[in-house]
Amino acid sequence: MAVKHHYPHAVPTLGPAIEHGFYYDIDFGNAGKPSAEDFPKLEATMHEIISQALPFHHEEVTADQARALFEMNPYKRELIDNLEKEGKTITIYYTGDTFFDLCGGGHTDTTGDIAPGSFKLDKIAGAYWRGDEKNAMLTRIYGLAFDTKEELDAYITQQEEAKKRDHRILGKQLKLFTFSELVGPGLPLWTPRGTLIREALNDYVWSLRKQQGYQRVTIPHITKSDLYIKSGHWAKYAEDLFKIETRDKHLFAMKPMNCPHHAQIYASELRSYKELPLRFSETTMVYRDEQSGELSGLARVLSITQDDAHVFCRESQLEEEMGRVWQIIETFYGTFGFSLTPRFSRRDPNAPEKYMGGDEGWTKAETAIKNLIHAKSADNWIDGEGEAAFYGPKIDFMAKDSIGRTWQVATIQVDFVQPTNLELEYVSEEGKRERPVMIHCAVMGSIERFMSTFIEHTGGNFPLWLSPTQISILPIADAHKAYAVSIKNTLSEKDIRVELDDAKEGLGKKIRNAREMKTPYWAVIGDAEVANGTVTLEHRTEGKIGEMKVDDLITRLTNEIKEKK
Amino acid sequence: MAVKHHYPHAVPTLGPAIEHGFYYDIDFGNAGKPSAEDFPKLEATMHEIISQALPFHHEEVTADQARALFEMNPYKRELIDNLEKEGKTITIYYTGDTFFDLCGGGHTDTTGDIAPGSFKLDKIAGAYWRGDEKNAMLTRIYGLAFDTKEELDAYITQQEEAKKRDHRILGKQLKLFTFSELVGPGLPLWTPRGTLIREALNDYVWSLRKQQGYQRVTIPHITKSDLYIKSGHWAKYAEDLFKIETRDKHLFAMKPMNCPHHAQIYASELRSYKELPLRFSETTMVYRDEQSGELSGLARVLSITQDDAHVFCRESQLEEEMGRVWQIIETFYGTFGFSLTPRFSRRDPNAPEKYMGGDEGWTKAETAIKNLIHAKSADNWIDGEGEAAFYGPKIDFMAKDSIGRTWQVATIQVDFVQPTNLELEYVSEEGKRERPVMIHCAVMGSIERFMSTFIEHTGGNFPLWLSPTQISILPIADAHKAYAVSIKNTLSEKDIRVELDDAKEGLGKKIRNAREMKTPYWAVIGDAEVANGTVTLEHRTEGKIGEMKVDDLITRLTNEIKEKK
Repeated sequence: MAVKHHYPHAVPTLGPAIEHGFYYDIDFGNAGKPSAEDFPKLEATMHEIISQALPFHHEEVTADQARALFEMNPYKRELIDNLEKEGKTITIYYTGDTFFDLCGGGHTDTTGDIAPGSFKLDKIAGAYWRGDEKNAMLTRIYGLAFDTKEELDAYITQQEEAKKRDHRILGKQLKLFTFSELVGPGLPLWTPRGTLIREALNDYVWSLRKQQGYQRVTIPHITKSDLYIKSGHWAKYAEDLFKIETRDKHLFAMKPMNCPHHAQIYASELRSYKELPLRFSETTMVYRDEQSGELSGLARVLSITQDDAHVFCRESQLEEEMGRVWQIIETFYGTFGFSLTPRFSRRDPNAPEKYMGGDEGWTKAETAIKNLIHAKSADNWIDGEGEAAFYGPKIDFMAKDSIGRTWQVATIQVDFVQPTNLELEYVSEEGKRERPVMIHCAVMGSIERFMSTFIEHTGGNFPLWLSPTQISILPIADAHKAYAVSIKNTLSEKDIRVELDDAKEGLGKKIRNAREMKTPYWAVIGDAEVANGTVTLEHRTEGKIGEMKVDDLITRLTNEIKEKK
Repeated sequence: MAVKHHYPHAVPTLGPAIEHGFYYDIDFGNAGKPSAEDFPKLEATMHEIISQALPFHHEEVTADQARALFEMNPYKRELIDNLEKEGKTITIYYTGDTFFDLCGGGHTDTTGDIAPGSFKLDKIAGAYWRGDEKNAMLTRIYGLAFDTKEELDAYITQQEEAKKRDHRILGKQLKLFTFSELVGPGLPLWTPRGTLIREALNDYVWSLRKQQGYQRVTIPHITKSDLYIKSGHWAKYAEDLFKIETRDKHLFAMKPMNCPHHAQIYASELRSYKELPLRFSETTMVYRDEQSGELSGLARVLSITQDDAHVFCRESQLEEEMGRVWQIIETFYGTFGFSLTPRFSRRDPNAPEKYMGGDEGWTKAETAIKNLIHAKSADNWIDGEGEAAFYGPKIDFMAKDSIGRTWQVATIQVDFVQPTNLELEYVSEEGKRERPVMIHCAVMGSIERFMSTFIEHTGGNFPLWLSPTQISILPIADAHKAYAVSIKNTLSEKDIRVELDDAKEGLGKKIRNAREMKTPYWAVIGDAEVANGTVTLEHRTEGKIGEMKVDDLITRLTNEIKEKK
């Protein structure tokens, strides 16, 4: 209505509600069209419309009546034709007396119900009619819309904060990963600094798993297609696989997941119930053939490093085994200050036909999860009725980051189907062949996705134990360099990751460089420090800590590293 | 001659000398042919021919004369026709007066020069004439032949010992790796026990590299073909690559080596001479499209785990950097009791056109290697004149194993070509752009090949620090089980890999099981041990060590593990 007020020639097309607001695609033809600079003018008109508290009301019309109302708008007529073909009800919504639109509703009672300041025009872009590049190019105006001004403000603050923390920008600035045009998009190359963080995170997950009785295994990244035909993945996911024809004309695929390979290690021996649970763990890359257009930063990549694990156990062991995984997930995410919300994704009780595997097993597994949620006193759990996978129920964990965004992170999935497809067995106490159940669980999910979340969660201010450089030694002048080198060597011997900045630059510049790289600590060395055998320590957020003996510095750093703070 | 004596209808075809002996392909038609049971009879005749000291002599003949001599032998006639076509000299060798053969020579003076007992018929097999399955199937008789009986005996002993140590058999017996028909040949799946050894070996290599200033990086297993077109690998090795066409119709390849990817990390920033040498290290799988017929055990696989490293440095840094690598290789192989012989693979001075890169660089690099060999006092070095790669000189290390076999293991390769093809640069002191040199070096080469060598070298008797199970606790009866469990937990807490064998079996059987798995130690627990708070320790080769306190056991094991004995 505001657009039509300022641009009477505008032809509205489609304008749906989306997450955090709405957009509207409008054809301005060759006449004047707005830019972002016109947003204040449009918003002022929107506020005026609100202040008039114009009533919304709607009318059901026939297709012919609708076509007559939109005689001058071929887009709306196309929509009306489609609604007619599909036999759907056609409704027109009026705003006051003069403005109307083809719309399914619903609306508030009047424009006065919209809280002033709860919305904001956001950005403008080009968009093809119905997303098809053969059609006319339209102008898409995006708006943000919330219930209250407070919610809008909070969202805008979060977005601004998120922009500062964009992992693609920080990844470059902190020299963590890089992309090469020769290698291709979606294929990150991890530098020494980025690899250091990856390895430290991975070692941490492994240390938690080792405590829980996991064992590592190793598999190749390819397989004959036979494996996926038997596991059932070929039928479902063939088009997402990178396929290879070998020189011997065999059909191979790159693995998009690890479970069928791990199941082959399980199946390499006749297993006894005494061996169960068997807990296999492996951090390895999987590959999925995504469209290049979908690739950006680390959030979506072709080479995905999963910190994967598969537990082969009896149904009676499900609760304990899922509890062990939960323990690992809780400890891991707790270390970084993420708060977790579990979602119990279970069967839709009204559609039992959607699920594979016997009812008894499902009931046991769902009961195990319920008991576990109770045992964990997780009173914030979400009930995901009908959200189970076809192969089993699961627990998904949602993590809230430092700026309030929520990410789906780890999941614990029960699987009844693959053990059946791959004919896994064990010999029971009675000497009978029985089927084990599989539990899938990646703690970080993928290292790439965790890294992108983690970089944005910390804004690149990694805790000391994960900082590629833990401390920089900053001699003020050349005279202090020899002493600075000796400090560097002493710290290095204690396995502290230390850098010496002996460039011919002023101290101010050196400190700015350390800040730019988000180095947690730096130690300034001048005449006094050389004379006293000390350093003057500063911290990236705490500021100046003071002069201290090198032994005290080592104690401080090693304790902080050990505590993973 | 011996065959003709016993099988007058035999038609000899081709019979070359091979490593450790010879074979002869013979057409016995549908008449009687020998089996391995006939070897003693044939050998007796051979000894008789030797005792007659029949003189060898030869005659040059025309093709027509030769064809007349072999009128009844279509195989020899085919060979004669070919020799004639190629314009080659045709010679006939006589043994005494009655036996002659088409042969290029040379021979000893008489059959009496052959040391009795220096040869032995080895095995019998089928073989197609000229290796073509469309041709007639012949009978191939293999013989072993050495200068002396002592050399033959030593070889036979080595072969028998090697058979006992066959890594394919031990790999299965010790549950280190497995193959799955669904995954395919040449694609080993590593069990927990095998992975444990892989990881421990890899950690060891990394600890040695870390001391030398290496940093780890991480790359994906695929790339756009663009990378290999630019690096030059596509032109040379395209047919050995696993190729992938993506859903977007891009041509990708699985990496057959890591250097071009690592070079992209180098090239992600403008480098300064101050940053050099940059030492990148990564343990990662590479893939090569081998023919399935060539795949067997771990010696030849499709998925090859390289413990790879690339150093980017200036020519003036080559000697020091190669020295660091040599140090790592020496320490690593020394730990396992392999003795190393370096081979200096340098240019053929008569064929300078075979090599890429400037003469000055080559001379510097070869001088650096010569200096290094001198500095290392490696007086057993082999001069590999003309064995340099086209892209640079190298040092190859040959390792002699515990039964005297020699394996080519690590190499240190200088590379002038890839930095040029991939346009790598750094800024010198004078602000000019210069080319770095690359050094390639994998210490284990591939973990698969090292594992196969190492399994055969040790016969599966891995040193304690690499044993998947370091000690088994063997309670004699149920009454000793509770105490055995407490011992197990105590050792586990000290990070000792311990297993408890509480099966309902006699002690003898439990010890046999521990021996079968080549577990280094086992601790027997009976009434006395429970009463005294001790264990009675035995070792797989040292036998019974005696009763000792648990603290002493822990000290003994942890020291032995630390010392990597």
